[in-house]
Amino acid sequence: MLDIALLGCGGGMPMPERYLSALLLNYKGRKILVDCGEGTQVSMRMLGWGFKTIDVICITHCHGDHIVGLPGLLSTIGNSGRTEAMTIIGPAGITETVAGLRVIAPYLPYEIHIIEKPEASFAFLVQGSSLELRALDLEHSAPCLGYSFYIKRQARFDVKNAIRNNVPKLLWNKLQKNGAAVHEGIFYTPDMVMGEERPGIKVSFVTDTRPICSIPAFIEGSDLFVCEGTYGGQEDLGKAVKNKHMTFEEAATLAAEGKVKELLLTHFSPSLQDPVMYLPYAERIFQRTTIGQDRLVMHYQFEKEDKT
Amino acid sequence: MLDIALLGCGGGMPMPERYLSALLLNYKGRKILVDCGEGTQVSMRMLGWGFKTIDVICITHCHGDHIVGLPGLLSTIGNSGRTEAMTIIGPAGITETVAGLRVIAPYLPYEIHIIEKPEASFAFLVQGSSLELRALDLEHSAPCLGYSFYIKRQARFDVKNAIRNNVPKLLWNKLQKNGAAVHEGIFYTPDMVMGEERPGIKVSFVTDTRPICSIPAFIEGSDLFVCEGTYGGQEDLGKAVKNKHMTFEEAATLAAEGKVKELLLTHFSPSLQDPVMYLPYAERIFQRTTIGQDRLVMHYQFEKEDKT
Repeated sequence: MLDIALLGCGGGMPMPERYLSALLLNYKGRKILVDCGEGTQVSMRMLGWGFKTIDVICITHCHGDHIVGLPGLLSTIGNSGRTEAMTIIGPAGITETVAGLRVIAPYLPYEIHIIEKPEASFAFLVQGSSLELRALDLEHSAPCLGYSFYIKRQARFDVKNAIRNNVPKLLWNKLQKNGAAVHEGIFYTPDMVMGEERPGIKVSFVTDTRPICSIPAFIEGSDLFVCEGTYGGQEDLGKAVKNKHMTFEEAATLAAEGKVKELLLTHFSPSLQDPVMYLPYAERIFQRTTIGQDRLVMHYQFEKEDKT
Repeated sequence: MLDIALLGCGGGMPMPERYLSALLLNYKGRKILVDCGEGTQVSMRMLGWGFKTIDVICITHCHGDHIVGLPGLLSTIGNSGRTEAMTIIGPAGITETVAGLRVIAPYLPYEIHIIEKPEASFAFLVQGSSLELRALDLEHSAPCLGYSFYIKRQARFDVKNAIRNNVPKLLWNKLQKNGAAVHEGIFYTPDMVMGEERPGIKVSFVTDTRPICSIPAFIEGSDLFVCEGTYGGQEDLGKAVKNKHMTFEEAATLAAEGKVKELLLTHFSPSLQDPVMYLPYAERIFQRTTIGQDRLVMHYQFEKEDKT
C-alpha cells in the first residue's frame, strides 16, 4: 500500500554504485519525493514507477547533493504529460535555490507552488487518505529540515458505540461516509458510530544533521526511520561533529530513543567504501538496522488486527 | 597522447544505460570537458582520470541535458584540491545560466572565467602544445555552439633548410627552442631552421543542431567527428526537423562532406532503444561510423612519418 524506495544513498558526490540523496514514497500510486540528488531520475527509471504522479517534492536542504537533480526531474515530469500543479517544500532559501536551478527548466507545463519553511505540521489528502506531513529544524551547516509522514488510518464502524449513543440505524452508514447529520432535531457526529483510532503508518527522514534532542520525539514510533549515517565508525566522530553529520552509532541511538520499528541508514560519505562493515556499530544499539542501498524498496501495510 | 572519452551519449533524459551529453579530452593529463549533463561525474569516476586537471569546460548550449551536471562537478573539482582558475566557454546566455546553477555551488576554491560567445578561434597552450579551439554557431532551439579542437604538431628541425638559409650552426638549437635570435647583426627566425608543418590532431563536436551548410568546412579533416544522431532512421526526419536535431543519415552526410576520418554518433533520443540497429543508415553514406556508448574511449597519436 505504501511503497518506499531509497533512490540514492550517497552523500557529497555521486558514485558509480551510489547515487545522491533521494527517497520516494508511493502511496497507492501517488508519490512524494524527498530530496533530489544526481541520479534520482535514473533510479526512478530503473524502478519504473513513473514520473507523472509526483505531487510533492520535499527538499531537506539546498546543498547540491540533495537538490542538483531537481531541474532535470522537473523537465522529465513535464515530458511525462503532467499538467496538475506540484508542490515543493523546503527550508529557508528554497525559493531562491529553485529559481536559480530553473534557469535550465524555465518553461514547464504545470505550476509549481513552493512552501518555504513550512509550518511544523500540515495535512493533505492522498488517494482518499489523510497524510500528515511534519517538518523539524535540524542542525547542519545550512538551514535543513527533517520530515515525517503519517498516513492516518480510518477508524472502523463500531456497532456497540452506535447503540450506546442511541444513533438510529438509518444514520449508521451516512455518518461513516458523509460526516455529521441532523435527524428529528438531534445532531449526530461520526465519532458516535466509529471505534477507536487505529495506528497508521509513519515514516521519517532525517538528513543532514547532528543528533539533536528534538529528533527522538519527532520520529517517535516510526514504522521506518530513514536516517543519515554519513560516517561508519566512532573513530570518525570528530569528522561528524566538524561537518555536522552523524556516525552509525549516533543514528542508532536516535532510533532507540525514538522507539522506531526499523532504522534504514543512508547518506554515506564517499570515503565509506563498504558501509556494511560498520553495521555492528549500529546493531549494538538498535538491532533492526538496515544499511541502505540504491533502489532498496520496502513495503508497508496497516497493521493486521483481530476482528471484534 | 590524446585520449577521448564519451562520458554520456544520451539526449533529453538520463537513462540507466545512457547518461547525458559529455565528452572528455585528455591531452597528456590536462583535460577539456565538452558539455556536462547528468551522469558526467559518475562516468568520470568510473574512468578514474581524476577531476583536478579539468582546465576548460565548453558548453554547447544551456539546455538541461547538456549542463545540469555542472554545479555538482564544480564542487567535486573543488574537493579534488584544485586552486588554479578554470575557464568555462559557452554560447549567449552561459554567464547567466552558470550563475543560476551556482546557487548550489556558490563557494569554490578556484576562480572561474567565463567566455561567452567566444571569438571564432583562439589558441592556448596545453602541456607545451598549442591547442586551437574553434566555435561555430549551430541551428538549434537555443543559442548553440559546435566546437573543434586542433592540437598543432611542431615542425621538425630541417638541416637542409638551415643550410639553405645560411643559419650558423650555433643558432640551430636556440632557434628551435627559444624563438628568434640576432647574431652578428643578422636576425634569424625559427622557420629558417624548421621543416614543413606536420598534421596535428583534430577533433570536432557538433550537437544539437540541424545539418547546416557551415558544418562541413568547420569539421574538415577531423580525425574524429563526434556528432549528434538524435534519431536513427529517416522515418524520423520530420521529428528531427521539428526539434532541430539530426538523423544518422544526416550526420553521416556531414561526415562525408567534411572528409573526416571517423564519425562517432551520440546524443541518442530516449526513444532510440537500440541505436546500433540504425547503424546501416549511417554506414551507407559514411563507412567509418561508430555508435557511441557511455565511457567509450578512443586514443589518438600524431601520424607516423618516414624519417628523411
